[in-house]
Amino acid sequence: MTDQPDIMANDGGVGDGPAGVDTRHGIELDLGRGARRGYPEAVYCEGKTPDQVGRIAGLVAEAAIGSTHPGTTLFTRAGAEHRSAVLAALPDAFVDERARLLAWPPVPPEPTGGLVVVAAAGTSDQAVALEAAHTARFLGRTVESVDDIGIAGVHRTLARVNLLRSAAAIVVVAGMDGALPGLVAGLVPAPVIAVPTSVGYGAAFEGIAALLTMLNACAPGVAVVNIDNGYGAGHMAAQIARHAPPMS
Amino acid sequence: MTDQPDIMANDGGVGDGPAGVDTRHGIELDLGRGARRGYPEAVYCEGKTPDQVGRIAGLVAEAAIGSTHPGTTLFTRAGAEHRSAVLAALPDAFVDERARLLAWPPVPPEPTGGLVVVAAAGTSDQAVALEAAHTARFLGRTVESVDDIGIAGVHRTLARVNLLRSAAAIVVVAGMDGALPGLVAGLVPAPVIAVPTSVGYGAAFEGIAALLTMLNACAPGVAVVNIDNGYGAGHMAAQIARHAPPMS
Amino acid sequence: MTDQPDIMANDGGVGDGPAGVDTRHGIELDLGRGARRGYPEAVYCEGKTPDQVGRIAGLVAEAAIGSTHPGTTLFTRAGAEHRSAVLAALPDAFVDERARLLAWPPVPPEPTGGLVVVAAAGTSDQAVALEAAHTARFLGRTVESVDDIGIAGVHRTLARVNLLRSAAAIVVVAGMDGALPGLVAGLVPAPVIAVPTSVGYGAAFEGIAALLTMLNACAPGVAVVNIDNGYGAGHMAAQIARHAPPMS
Amino acid sequence: MTDQPDIMANDGGVGDGPAGVDTRHGIELDLGRGARRGYPEAVYCEGKTPDQVGRIAGLVAEAAIGSTHPGTTLFTRAGAEHRSAVLAALPDAFVDERARLLAWPPVPPEPTGGLVVVAAAGTSDQAVALEAAHTARFLGRTVESVDDIGIAGVHRTLARVNLLRSAAAIVVVAGMDGALPGLVAGLVPAPVIAVPTSVGYGAAFEGIAALLTMLNACAPGVAVVNIDNGYGAGHMAAQIARHAPPMS
Amino acid sequence: MTDQPDIMANDGGVGDGPAGVDTRHGIELDLGRGARRGYPEAVYCEGKTPDQVGRIAGLVAEAAIGSTHPGTTLFTRAGAEHRSAVLAALPDAFVDERARLLAWPPVPPEPTGGLVVVAAAGTSDQAVALEAAHTARFLGRTVESVDDIGIAGVHRTLARVNLLRSAAAIVVVAGMDGALPGLVAGLVPAPVIAVPTSVGYGAAFEGIAALLTMLNACAPGVAVVNIDNGYGAGHMAAQIARHAPPMS
Amino acid sequence: MTDQPDIMANDGGVGDGPAGVDTRHGIELDLGRGARRGYPEAVYCEGKTPDQVGRIAGLVAEAAIGSTHPGTTLFTRAGAEHRSAVLAALPDAFVDERARLLAWPPVPPEPTGGLVVVAAAGTSDQAVALEAAHTARFLGRTVESVDDIGIAGVHRTLARVNLLRSAAAIVVVAGMDGALPGLVAGLVPAPVIAVPTSVGYGAAFEGIAALLTMLNACAPGVAVVNIDNGYGAGHMAAQIARHAPPMS
Amino acid sequence: MTDQPDIMANDGGVGDGPAGVDTRHGIELDLGRGARRGYPEAVYCEGKTPDQVGRIAGLVAEAAIGSTHPGTTLFTRAGAEHRSAVLAALPDAFVDERARLLAWPPVPPEPTGGLVVVAAAGTSDQAVALEAAHTARFLGRTVESVDDIGIAGVHRTLARVNLLRSAAAIVVVAGMDGALPGLVAGLVPAPVIAVPTSVGYGAAFEGIAALLTMLNACAPGVAVVNIDNGYGAGHMAAQIARHAPPMS
Amino acid sequence: MTDQPDIMANDGGVGDGPAGVDTRHGIELDLGRGARRGYPEAVYCEGKTPDQVGRIAGLVAEAAIGSTHPGTTLFTRAGAEHRSAVLAALPDAFVDERARLLAWPPVPPEPTGGLVVVAAAGTSDQAVALEAAHTARFLGRTVESVDDIGIAGVHRTLARVNLLRSAAAIVVVAGMDGALPGLVAGLVPAPVIAVPTSVGYGAAFEGIAALLTMLNACAPGVAVVNIDNGYGAGHMAAQIARHAPPMS
Repeated sequence: MTDQPDIMANDGGVGDGPAGVDTRHGIELDLGRGARRGYPEAVYCEGKTPDQVGRIAGLVAEAAIGSTHPGTTLFTRAGAEHRSAVLAALPDAFVDERARLLAWPPVPPEPTGGLVVVAAAGTSDQAVALEAAHTARFLGRTVESVDDIGIAGVHRTLARVNLLRSAAAIVVVAGMDGALPGLVAGLVPAPVIAVPTSVGYGAAFEGIAALLTMLNACAPGVAVVNIDNGYGAGHMAAQIARHAPPMS
Repeated sequence: MTDQPDIMANDGGVGDGPAGVDTRHGIELDLGRGARRGYPEAVYCEGKTPDQVGRIAGLVAEAAIGSTHPGTTLFTRAGAEHRSAVLAALPDAFVDERARLLAWPPVPPEPTGGLVVVAAAGTSDQAVALEAAHTARFLGRTVESVDDIGIAGVHRTLARVNLLRSAAAIVVVAGMDGALPGLVAGLVPAPVIAVPTSVGYGAAFEGIAALLTMLNACAPGVAVVNIDNGYGAGHMAAQIARHAPPMS
Repeated sequence: MTDQPDIMANDGGVGDGPAGVDTRHGIELDLGRGARRGYPEAVYCEGKTPDQVGRIAGLVAEAAIGSTHPGTTLFTRAGAEHRSAVLAALPDAFVDERARLLAWPPVPPEPTGGLVVVAAAGTSDQAVALEAAHTARFLGRTVESVDDIGIAGVHRTLARVNLLRSAAAIVVVAGMDGALPGLVAGLVPAPVIAVPTSVGYGAAFEGIAALLTMLNACAPGVAVVNIDNGYGAGHMAAQIARHAPPMS
Repeated sequence: MTDQPDIMANDGGVGDGPAGVDTRHGIELDLGRGARRGYPEAVYCEGKTPDQVGRIAGLVAEAAIGSTHPGTTLFTRAGAEHRSAVLAALPDAFVDERARLLAWPPVPPEPTGGLVVVAAAGTSDQAVALEAAHTARFLGRTVESVDDIGIAGVHRTLARVNLLRSAAAIVVVAGMDGALPGLVAGLVPAPVIAVPTSVGYGAAFEGIAALLTMLNACAPGVAVVNIDNGYGAGHMAAQIARHAPPMS
Repeated sequence: MTDQPDIMANDGGVGDGPAGVDTRHGIELDLGRGARRGYPEAVYCEGKTPDQVGRIAGLVAEAAIGSTHPGTTLFTRAGAEHRSAVLAALPDAFVDERARLLAWPPVPPEPTGGLVVVAAAGTSDQAVALEAAHTARFLGRTVESVDDIGIAGVHRTLARVNLLRSAAAIVVVAGMDGALPGLVAGLVPAPVIAVPTSVGYGAAFEGIAALLTMLNACAPGVAVVNIDNGYGAGHMAAQIARHAPPMS
Repeated sequence: MTDQPDIMANDGGVGDGPAGVDTRHGIELDLGRGARRGYPEAVYCEGKTPDQVGRIAGLVAEAAIGSTHPGTTLFTRAGAEHRSAVLAALPDAFVDERARLLAWPPVPPEPTGGLVVVAAAGTSDQAVALEAAHTARFLGRTVESVDDIGIAGVHRTLARVNLLRSAAAIVVVAGMDGALPGLVAGLVPAPVIAVPTSVGYGAAFEGIAALLTMLNACAPGVAVVNIDNGYGAGHMAAQIARHAPPMS
Repeated sequence: MTDQPDIMANDGGVGDGPAGVDTRHGIELDLGRGARRGYPEAVYCEGKTPDQVGRIAGLVAEAAIGSTHPGTTLFTRAGAEHRSAVLAALPDAFVDERARLLAWPPVPPEPTGGLVVVAAAGTSDQAVALEAAHTARFLGRTVESVDDIGIAGVHRTLARVNLLRSAAAIVVVAGMDGALPGLVAGLVPAPVIAVPTSVGYGAAFEGIAALLTMLNACAPGVAVVNIDNGYGAGHMAAQIARHAPPMS
Repeated sequence: MTDQPDIMANDGGVGDGPAGVDTRHGIELDLGRGARRGYPEAVYCEGKTPDQVGRIAGLVAEAAIGSTHPGTTLFTRAGAEHRSAVLAALPDAFVDERARLLAWPPVPPEPTGGLVVVAAAGTSDQAVALEAAHTARFLGRTVESVDDIGIAGVHRTLARVNLLRSAAAIVVVAGMDGALPGLVAGLVPAPVIAVPTSVGYGAAFEGIAALLTMLNACAPGVAVVNIDNGYGAGHMAAQIARHAPPMS
């Protein structure tokens, strides 16, 4: 006998929407997602009006009433107006303007699993690297950040080898030629999540050059997320490091 | 004090090349790689002459003499002539013609870590899925394969949810619209390694359409490897599942 | 004998232009189009000056004098200045700022034909979905809208299956990975008009990723219109549902 | 209360697979699809081995035993070896080599619904046009074909206006500049399904030029399927014409 | 004996630069160009500072002193600041803001050669069409303009056939699907210069779709200039019509 | 009063097709085209079966019976089998295998109009240049050919300046960097038709590099046809030179 | 014995970072680079905040204390705010606003090696050409600049041949068709570094057309840097001319 | 007074063609090129018929009669038939089948200038690397080759640092991610000529990924030639190393 889909059963019903979907206020919050996937949903702010984001933040506040350990909610790609709207509903939220990210409750859960290292090739890649690092932290991992270890000065990367080798998952953020993830992957046992950034000019084509470099990395152990997608990389790294021992 | 690069120290010297590099026969085998990264090197046959591949196989055989547990060597993208050349040196090698892969020694190591599930969207994606599955197996994981669960008949995917949810890492192989990884990632806690295939026609553009779809997957927890890169996906999945419990 | 082209005969002559073409004011209104095609022309405002749009609105008002049932005229892609110019000539026009659309007369005709369902994958796709829905309504169809049923939470789509199956034509609007139309088409008997949106970032390439996904949808019964072309999708859906029974 | 998904209930169980999925012989036939969508599944042969296609044909033959009106099965993109494999299991299947299509049972169902017109811009577009025409016929529509009415000699198109205006759905197949669908859509009330073909050279880019032209058609009422996808266009046209009167 | 290059001999020496090149003010004016090619140079303003453009205009004024018939100088792609700078030096220059063009002396030469017709597909293409028309006029041709004859209403094009057939050269300006030049070329004996415009959205890709359509036009007699290059098209048309009789 | 379309009136009726269209044998020959456009139709052989091409040649032979001056018919892109099929029906046809072109009657008409010069940048561009030269000759122009004058040795171009300056129309054929047309246009009064060829490798991208170079030529007086489209360039040049004096 | 890597030994230790890396202030200055490569590092300002750039300038000032001949530091792609931040720390720095470049100390070193010629095709390419020229000067070369020698007036290039032939390295900067480097390389013995610029419109595609032209230049002796990368070209030219005699 | 173009004077006249151009046999040999540029012309065989290549070889043999030191002629991209044709005329020519190159006279000139190092990232890049190495040798330089130093095992590159640092010019050949040139440039004082190869699969896009990586290399001192253009890279390196001391 084949296994049975339990997707419907897993989601607790809320309101008059389908199981696990709260349709109040015209916005669908996927509150069943934590149960289904083990990680909370993030609110992608770009393309939403500040008003919509504010209403979502209100729903989050409301849902947490009476809960002693509400799950973390992340707000990503938040501009200044989105930020204000979230803070109106969740005044004590954690904020990092440079990473355009907010998190609530403001303190990450006690870390479990293996170490996540987030490495940025250059100064201009730091905003995306921060988004990745915060995401992994708020999903429950210990995170170490390394900056400015681009391939043009390879001794800088080599100087970090011991740290890189102790990671359970590594996020490498790089624009321009995007060569760093392949270099790192050749030095370590952990899987590398590569994040191309739109940093560069001319034939960098807003991150396409870095994206292609990463997809063609000669060393195995590299997989790629969308350009500038620090959130996705941090999420993936947190998932990967979940079962690893604290120090590899 | 900063940590010290140990890259040079880790590699045992062989012959007159740099540490850990065997330059005999004009070919550089990276025999130190298992120590440095924890995974054996694979020989990518495409673009090498059968003669070159045969000489590499000979070096592998030679290096294993006296060893009771030689590490696995994979030969990927092996055409018919490459296959013959490998088998001449390693006659008992494992062969899967459809996956264009050979492995030696022919028996995978005793599996450790979590379960790897390899899912193929359609019949035409199976060769790439097989390459991924064999790679993960020979790198020491338990692997389950699932076929033909493309998004056009979503009930087929839903019928596999329990198996997918028990995986520590999932490889999803899909051509044409490449939509399956995003669907799967929305249903499971494990990270998904997405492999676009060059299956399709017209605006599939030899896998570009699937690649873009996967990079833009709405669900977090998806990272992408190169088009048709089953080996890379299987390697990455084996790395991810390494520390997971046998059944999540 | 072959059939004879009646294109010329169908168009009633107006003014001194060619048959059916009103060249007064230096603008050509295709007033014969309703007769020729059965649907009124829409005024695409982008690229026209507000003054030009205002003069067209004036011609529409003028042409309607003495008519008890003037055909609907749609003004699409109307910015704030275009809106003002139209309202100066047609003060009671229907306006939806978010959809950037105006319609006059402001009340849609009595609906005929089958049901058109307009589904949006995410919150950011709603403006385009609204343009499609209004267009279908003003061309004479009953329209139902569904929001936020993206593939990342497939249970949300499944919860709407009965509604989707009752449609005579379905418009599915999606950005990012653009996977929703293929999922929907696999569940329903009606044809699906897919609208890629420019929502997304990085490798979404302003809608190209979604466009390619939709063109490669594995399920038959999907056809695609231009990126962000809600008007075109709504028009096509209205044409498709024209002869269908009120409820399929 | 929201509507309930009936997707699971619709599919009758067969064998030990999920409901409606026959997993015998290692191939999943979606036999529940006719019930779910109203149209039979087509077997896309490209990328399948002749042996796989032959086994599918055998399953089709087997499933039809005892049925007086077995549903039509289409085999598309069938090369010479696929063709032999199908005919071995279904010797009386309908075959059109040029369209690379087989159908069984060999006689289309009695036509219902409105007229489908399939127009090809040039001689080289005829193979794709044939695939579209056969598909629509075997899905139960009356089909008329028109050839060689490209835009370079517009009088040829105009000479067909009466036929085009009587259609409930029109498939227009064109390579090179792909301008014909926009011209036709401006002349008729029916929706136009545009099929770009890979016919052309140089900057035709294997159908991309035609694809872009069609997506940018100025006349509303055009939607596009993948390059060379005659099957998809014929399927969509059959769906559109389903509820139309025999002659519009 | 082979023919001898006379390029050097043709250019009269001015100042201390190479023959025919005036290097005063740090700007090189190619005053020998009229003699060498038969047409005056145009000053492309985009990318030049208003100050540079003003100094060029001053040199033009200076060079004309004492000349009874100074050749025409065109200033193209002139923004508001460029316009002011030109008018400061050449106060009676001809100005068309919409076409972003100035000309001096302000009156075109007495027309010679055949008729140039400039046709625009839509209202949004008129600025580019005006640039083409003014260029041809100031290079000495009679010009007739036709607007709004896009392919979506083919009767509008057919109504202009007699005028189009009387032209010695036709410029056709079109954005979106760019199909008009191929339609026109199929109806007339004169060569058609096609100008794609960046008008459109989504898959129009800033004029690429129209450019490809025009390069793939099925009718011979179409050649293409750069996107939005009205000046180049008008120049080419003036060259083509140079030797033609006043009315073909 | 507006001018009247005479398109229908111009075409003499033949058989039972629309006016001017001979539908015998299932192939539409546009025999009215010479009258409508002033130039005969060419038969593009690629994508047609040899049998279809042979039947067209037969119709051409048949139509010429009794005519003392039958118009020229060109067969372009003719492979070996197409060539045999044409020669079976028109045994005395002119043949140039390298240009893949046939013409019948085999002698070009007495030349009229101005000189057409066809210049090829390199040896590998000669096949396309020949197609252009033959086309212009058979359409009634005097043609001179110049080879191997690429920009890498500019003295070779300068040595041909007098010839180039005597032309009424110049076709310049170039692959790789495609820079020659811009160089030539800067030296001559005649319009230049630029033909990119697919000659080159790597970043030549099958002619795209040359195409882009030509579209961006700095000198005005360059217009571009499709990659490798020698026929289109020769046709356009013949049209341009039609009214010019024998020697400019 | 193989040669030994001296990379680590070459770098003098500073602070507590790895050898040659100053990690004070959270910014890594690669002060060992001059010793390792022979050329100072440049500070790429784009993507850095003015504050970060200012702190780097401060570190440069600090490091120079007590040094009689501090090495040159270049600040490239400096906007107005970056400029102010640098000048606050290094008030006597050399500034060229148009080239967006600063240098300190403000006087270039005494020139050595061969002549570098920097040629710009058009007025709009001068900013990039200036960046190249300043870079080569501050890296110790004699530089001559040539402007406005685009291919459309080839006599302008020929008039500069003697200067071009005396160079040890030539930088050629060109937008639009990018044809100049190939022309120059055919005339001189020195290697040509080609810099495509984003100057142009339409099918210039922000420098892609020029980039492709340059990569496909028919003359050998051309190598290409990124679009608008004047710094890279000037650096490369300085390296090439390093060992050449003062006048070739 | 400006400098005078000596281009014409430099070329000695041969036969009845323009100065320095031998037009016998319908092929133009640029025999004046050695005098003009200092390097002999290479014969690019691809796209030429074996017969044409053979005739060129004959002209080379003929021109060398009576000369004691004939300049080297290279034949590049020579297939088997080209090779035979060259050897028929120049039986003692140097041949390297893998590099598809021939040279005559078969012995390179006595080396002068600095060292050229040619480094290949992987085994599959060796054919292109050989073409570069032979070209530099036959143009008069000492050449050292290094293989298999790809970025995935960075210790292999570091082991070669002393050799790389002794070069006057370095050619780095790499496919797939193309990251090696940027790594090398960060370690050495010499300029690096980067050659992308078409080695790789999927998103390597026949060398585009490597090309973009190289254009975006973070370290200055990298310039790029066309994909697979070993000849161009070797030529450029020979030019660069011309004036350098034997060992840097």
